[in-house]
Amino acid sequence: MIETALYLIPVELSDVGLDQVLPSGNIKIVSHIKHFIVENVRSARRFLKRCDRDIDIDSLTFAELNRHTHPEDIAPMLSPLENGEPVGVISEAGCPAIADPGADVVAIAQRKGLKVIPLVGPSSILMGLMASGFNGQSFAFVGYLPIDAAERARRLKEMEHRILHENQTQIFIETPYRNNALAAELCKLMPASIKLCIATDITGPSQSIVTRGVKQWAGHLPNLHKVPTIFLLYK
Amino acid sequence: MIETALYLIPVELSDVGLDQVLPSGNIKIVSHIKHFIVENVRSARRFLKRCDRDIDIDSLTFAELNRHTHPEDIAPMLSPLENGEPVGVISEAGCPAIADPGADVVAIAQRKGLKVIPLVGPSSILMGLMASGFNGQSFAFVGYLPIDAAERARRLKEMEHRILHENQTQIFIETPYRNNALAAELCKLMPASIKLCIATDITGPSQSIVTRGVKQWAGHLPNLHKVPTIFLLYK
Repeated sequence: MIETALYLIPVELSDVGLDQVLPSGNIKIVSHIKHFIVENVRSARRFLKRCDRDIDIDSLTFAELNRHTHPEDIAPMLSPLENGEPVGVISEAGCPAIADPGADVVAIAQRKGLKVIPLVGPSSILMGLMASGFNGQSFAFVGYLPIDAAERARRLKEMEHRILHENQTQIFIETPYRNNALAAELCKLMPASIKLCIATDITGPSQSIVTRGVKQWAGHLPNLHKVPTIFLLYK
Repeated sequence: MIETALYLIPVELSDVGLDQVLPSGNIKIVSHIKHFIVENVRSARRFLKRCDRDIDIDSLTFAELNRHTHPEDIAPMLSPLENGEPVGVISEAGCPAIADPGADVVAIAQRKGLKVIPLVGPSSILMGLMASGFNGQSFAFVGYLPIDAAERARRLKEMEHRILHENQTQIFIETPYRNNALAAELCKLMPASIKLCIATDITGPSQSIVTRGVKQWAGHLPNLHKVPTIFLLYK
């Protein structure tokens, strides 16, 4: 049996075998859970089928938690747990509550004093950082850069400052159809002392995690259009 | 067969079965590697034995990379890889190159244009963040706080500012015998609007990841003396 807790269940980032990216212990835990809070019901069902072909999907309950969810609808999703049954949180990809809406339900669980148990799984932020060669003793993930030009320039300057003066690796993402524009912008605006790591398709068949100086990248950038990419900057 | 690359191989954080925290695919990859760069030879050998009881340890080579290693001794550790053989990096615990010396050899591999492949495994930083309920869209890991009192007070103010004005979760660690003093200090110095998540023994039998307001924690702190702990702050 498993504990009465809110389990945070990571999902693959790419089309690979589960045994490449998830501990087998996760699958055993998942098979004991009947109630799920998920970013998307359809992809969560598919994930559970991959965990266990013989799973009885119709015996499970799913509550959808994403950017369309009303805040007041989140707390009731925890009622199975308050009644003594474990609940699982599943995102679209990667680790729940890291750069996705799962954090809201975890915050409520913490406020209610409910037990929360994170499981191991792939995180493109962490795996990109590991393979970048950049400082792993101090790093920040800042999500998406601002779209407004002035605000964006200010943010880039701030990141540059934190790299040069705080020795802090800066990690961020972009809307995938704007990846190429962002990469070109970084090469143009960052000083020659800054290195850029471009990490694409992490854990996937075309995985590439390459670090070069911004001036070495300039004119030699790969095509990142709509390719899942994490950007990392350091000196 | 596996790729000719520098593989970053995570290790358990606590005394649990490998199948709870590592994908079985990692073990298969490890069994194809003959050359390792390790933080500590003795514990790396033990880890490899746990991966495969029948492993022929004497057929493997180990280069030690830790804070005693001379910088000029690091690059030669990659020579097996330059000769076409995969090399593995193994730290004492958790993910190589995150808050440990492995990042230096990864940086050299990147400079030499060698392929780097991170594997999935447990990270107390990431798992603490997942379970904290704090903002996972913007977060910083800042390592150890400064020891000097004035510098430390300045850093705490800066973290407070980044929480309140940048909505950035702040994550850090302390020398384990000073955990209790740090926790008390945070409760005393942080304003009432700040929440503290104390994450101890992550993945271990006494795992506890609990978020409360700093004023709720005050006077009710658990004994963290020499307990592996990650501290997280947010509002």
